[in-house]
Amino acid sequence: MMAALFDPPYLAVIFSSQRTEEDRGYGRVSERMVELAAQQPGFLGVESARDAEGFGITVSYWKDEASVAAWKADLEHAAAQRLGKDTWYRAFRLRVAKVERVNGMG
Amino acid sequence: MMAALFDPPYLAVIFSSQRTEEDRGYGRVSERMVELAAQQPGFLGVESARDAEGFGITVSYWKDEASVAAWKADLEHAAAQRLGKDTWYRAFRLRVAKVERVNGMG
Repeated sequence: MMAALFDPPYLAVIFSSQRTEEDRGYGRVSERMVELAAQQPGFLGVESARDAEGFGITVSYWKDEASVAAWKADLEHAAAQRLGKDTWYRAFRLRVAKVERVNGMG
Repeated sequence: MMAALFDPPYLAVIFSSQRTEEDRGYGRVSERMVELAAQQPGFLGVESARDAEGFGITVSYWKDEASVAAWKADLEHAAAQRLGKDTWYRAFRLRVAKVERVNGMG
């Protein structure tokens, strides 16, 4: 699950989180959010990893601020964000960053 | 392993990678790199997660371009980068991004 590099500039939304022990549909909603994000205008890609201790990082890539704002405001996504704060995440960090240069292999 | 939010702007180095099956000291060198990074001028923090399929994301946070450049050029780190390309990573993506805004809980 590795996103293409694209030519910068574009935006990265870096979401790191520590899960609670609660399930309550987390896996299903999480998959649905990836599916829904991929349908949004300006979506470029997403990368995600969560370790055995429940610490995870998801980075989604977007064309511009308008596409980040539209995704944040999406009603189904907003409902999932509330569930995340109330139920699934013990702690999280969200950082919006402008990608300036890229490099890679494979 | 969650980094403090700090006041933007600062830089995020987003490193996503798919591991090979090769070990050859990976865990030891990986831990050493976190320890060494934390000693560099301008280091702000690091977050890292790798899943059971060997896909991982590490995001390190830096004060400015000078500190990112100095860390990239560190001799012990440069040797580890070569081992990574030759042995440990099947594929990777490296993105340098300027953090513009932050948000969090917990």
